[in-house]
Amino acid sequence: MQKIKETLRNITEIDDAIMEKAQQRLDHLTKPLGSLGRLEELAKLIVGITRKDNPHLNSKVIFTLTADHGVAEEKVSAYPQEVTAQMVYNFLRGGAGINVLAKHIGARVVVADVGVGTQLEPHPSLIIKKINFGTKNMVKGPAMTREEAIKSIETGIEIFEEELKKGIDIIGTGEMGIANTTASTAITATFTKKPIGDITGRGTGVDDKALKNKIRVIRKALKINKPDPSDPIDVLSKVGGFEIGGLTGIILSAASKKIPVVIDGFISGAAALLAFQMEPKVKGYMIASHCSAEKGHKVILDHIGLKPILDLNLRLGEGTGAALGITIVEAAVKILTEMATFQSAGVSERLNR
Amino acid sequence: MQKIKETLRNITEIDDAIMEKAQQRLDHLTKPLGSLGRLEELAKLIVGITRKDNPHLNSKVIFTLTADHGVAEEKVSAYPQEVTAQMVYNFLRGGAGINVLAKHIGARVVVADVGVGTQLEPHPSLIIKKINFGTKNMVKGPAMTREEAIKSIETGIEIFEEELKKGIDIIGTGEMGIANTTASTAITATFTKKPIGDITGRGTGVDDKALKNKIRVIRKALKINKPDPSDPIDVLSKVGGFEIGGLTGIILSAASKKIPVVIDGFISGAAALLAFQMEPKVKGYMIASHCSAEKGHKVILDHIGLKPILDLNLRLGEGTGAALGITIVEAAVKILTEMATFQSAGVSERLNR
Repeated sequence: MQKIKETLRNITEIDDAIMEKAQQRLDHLTKPLGSLGRLEELAKLIVGITRKDNPHLNSKVIFTLTADHGVAEEKVSAYPQEVTAQMVYNFLRGGAGINVLAKHIGARVVVADVGVGTQLEPHPSLIIKKINFGTKNMVKGPAMTREEAIKSIETGIEIFEEELKKGIDIIGTGEMGIANTTASTAITATFTKKPIGDITGRGTGVDDKALKNKIRVIRKALKINKPDPSDPIDVLSKVGGFEIGGLTGIILSAASKKIPVVIDGFISGAAALLAFQMEPKVKGYMIASHCSAEKGHKVILDHIGLKPILDLNLRLGEGTGAALGITIVEAAVKILTEMATFQSAGVSERLNR
Repeated sequence: MQKIKETLRNITEIDDAIMEKAQQRLDHLTKPLGSLGRLEELAKLIVGITRKDNPHLNSKVIFTLTADHGVAEEKVSAYPQEVTAQMVYNFLRGGAGINVLAKHIGARVVVADVGVGTQLEPHPSLIIKKINFGTKNMVKGPAMTREEAIKSIETGIEIFEEELKKGIDIIGTGEMGIANTTASTAITATFTKKPIGDITGRGTGVDDKALKNKIRVIRKALKINKPDPSDPIDVLSKVGGFEIGGLTGIILSAASKKIPVVIDGFISGAAALLAFQMEPKVKGYMIASHCSAEKGHKVILDHIGLKPILDLNLRLGEGTGAALGITIVEAAVKILTEMATFQSAGVSERLNR
């Protein structure tokens, strides 16, 4: 718990004064005042997060954390549990959606096994830091122990700190874990108090009957475990997942190091929600990449107060939406740092009308 | 007119059959069915436009056409008319928003003067094909002659055909011309029949008083000129602009060559609207990059039936929104062409639930 406390202590409010300076610079670039809308806001935010007048987002990293969920045995997903491990190998071979999109935007993908149900073959690009071989089935009791919940967050912090040594300018969050929309929905319901029926989506694409079953499973898990919304570690341990806890740690750690965090979809959103409940100041470091087709996601974004950059009806996870969000953020920063000013370009300034 | 007629004749419906094949391939990639939402639709569309199973969008071009507008003397813009020429030099030096964003996405910018009010200095990267030195003030009569309107479209076709020799896989439209939101609003009102007060925006950012004046100017121009919505050339000649006509030609020409066209904001939208009125089949080749903060733009998108990819509150023009749209489209195509299938990756397929 010491590592988590220290990380939380190092999360400070983003810097308003330097953002004000960035705004002044934006206002002198060769474009009508404010005409690059959201891009200008994003550029300013990156300045406020990094405390750099001229930030560069050269080193871009997507963290894709993977783990299994005991609740998968309740048939809440359209895919068998073995797919989690199979997809890890797909990530390592470069065949998954996140590999394609990360390459497109010039990011590297860090794949970590923090709790896949089987022993994976070692691979030079795979970080193996298992908390356990999958969580327990949360309809029968807590998904993990309190110690495991703490360890999952601390593992995320460690993974981030290790990767930071290679240089990081911005990160995206991502995950893979069969049944993890079920855990994320339970987390979302606990903190936002929204009716479970309203926030449960189809995940990988279950039919009406399976959706009803999924809602029933989540209700039962919450009833049996009674997670305490005033204690995020309790919520994570009772109805969370190892990759979710790991991402919470990564988000908190990045914020403590003044690195912008681009949040992917619903599961990453649940991790962001846990981080936000632990330390509200972390919000300033979060950028919501997109609004997922999975309906609980919008509820999370509204609860934290984040406005997504994209709305492309995505619901894959892995960090795919985050990758696209990062390239928009990078474009925004380049507007600030690479455009000419009216003065340098010899362009006439605006008239009073 | 011969060149326009020939171009229109060569615009055919996009290919449904090959899109169906692309859908089957998308359904076998290692992701839940349909989970990449809009990206899947875009990838399929590019296949349908190009008739290629494995399209590549390596060669990306933004056409930024520039011209002046006689109506600028009615004080409809927040910037003086000389800014059009000054911005052309800024484009050529690489200091403008479009230069930064085009570089970010790996596109080249083709800058053409089709009607700037002054004689510009020659530059190796500047295409000079002036229709005239700016349009006439449309509150006093037609902005241009019918011959000039035809010539502006044909000039766009020529500029595209010339650039096509260097290789083009996808294009974006862009423009610069002080007072061109006034012309675009008049065009939009003519075709969509929407009240002028509802669709007139602040352009470069005029205040309330200047906005009222702008609305009055547009009303007067339409009353005096009576553009005929059943005759797009008439509309262009009476209340259009040379860069708008040029972009109409570029859009039509690209569609006739089966090249996808990513439309930028409001002024590009007015050019797209003219192209659509001339040949509705061109719609299949158009991709709306974003929804502009300039309110007439949404009216155009709804009228044509286009769904924008991004909504970032942009209102700069130049092709800036198109550039960001293109990189999303390219990401979409890479999903189709670079991801592994369930079979190739050895991942289990979905269960029946």
